Amino acid sequence: MTSKDAVSHMSLALEEAKAAAERGEVPVGAVIVSADGKVLAAAGNRTRELQDPTAHAEILAIRAACSEVSDERLVGCSLYVTLEPCPMCAAAVSFARLKRLYYAASDPKGGGVEQGARVFNQPTCHHAPEIYPGIGEAEASFLLKDFFEQRRS
Amino acid sequence: MTSKDAVSHMSLALEEAKAAAERGEVPVGAVIVSADGKVLAAAGNRTRELQDPTAHAEILAIRAACSEVSDERLVGCSLYVTLEPCPMCAAAVSFARLKRLYYAASDPKGGGVEQGARVFNQPTCHHAPEIYPGIGEAEASFLLKDFFEQRRS
Repeated sequence: MTSKDAVSHMSLALEEAKAAAERGEVPVGAVIVSADGKVLAAAGNRTRELQDPTAHAEILAIRAACSEVSDERLVGCSLYVTLEPCPMCAAAVSFARLKRLYYAASDPKGGGVEQGARVFNQPTCHHAPEIYPGIGEAEASFLLKDFFEQRRS
Repeated sequence: MTSKDAVSHMSLALEEAKAAAERGEVPVGAVIVSADGKVLAAAGNRTRELQDPTAHAEILAIRAACSEVSDERLVGCSLYVTLEPCPMCAAAVSFARLKRLYYAASDPKGGGVEQGARVFNQPTCHHAPEIYPGIGEAEASFLLKDFFEQRRS
């Protein structure tokens, strides 16, 4: 995995985030890539459309990737997501046995990796991915800021 | 809500847990009840059958109840579950705005309410339910213990 690949995969996640914003959803996008570099799933947030509070981009991507490989574990795979996962999604990353987690922007208000629940740092967490924050941070933050500013105006 | 009703709803969750064990799934069951006492959804763990690491009983019940009421929030509703929710499910309870959480057995190894991530106690948690542990604890614990002992033998 070169950093060029990581940037490319995060770009795809950012496209998913933009598409989510266009649907009126909070702009978060996620991509799951297999150990050999194949994109297994790409998804954006759809909580409103699906009327499903669990339909965060990461959950939808994990479910789609598991379906793609017919396995409830995604051993060796990487998740790229535009925002720091919440505790729900961080725990799902752990259950799916994802090897690497790349996220763009931190989420001081709702994140569950660097703050709050710090899911991967708990003794009750039985698998933690390698964590790579920051790729695509500026664009991911802009998308979120722009989305919420437009909703306020 | 009388305690008799709570026992009855937890009994239904325990039936779902037993059915899960019969399918070879970790025996956890969940039931969601509306503010006026109607059972909106009942589900057992199906992570293996669905090859979906997010298919915990609580997540399936939340998704089914949201579908039932055509809303991504379950305001005023109660969740009954046979085991202390993990961080994924606890965060989903928060996002769904469930009013009350009843759980039978504590989960020292993987729980996210009383231990570990303590999702509802974090400043990043924007809605916490009222929490009532202990109803049906002995039966829920027996089901889990029996399930894992049979798998070891």
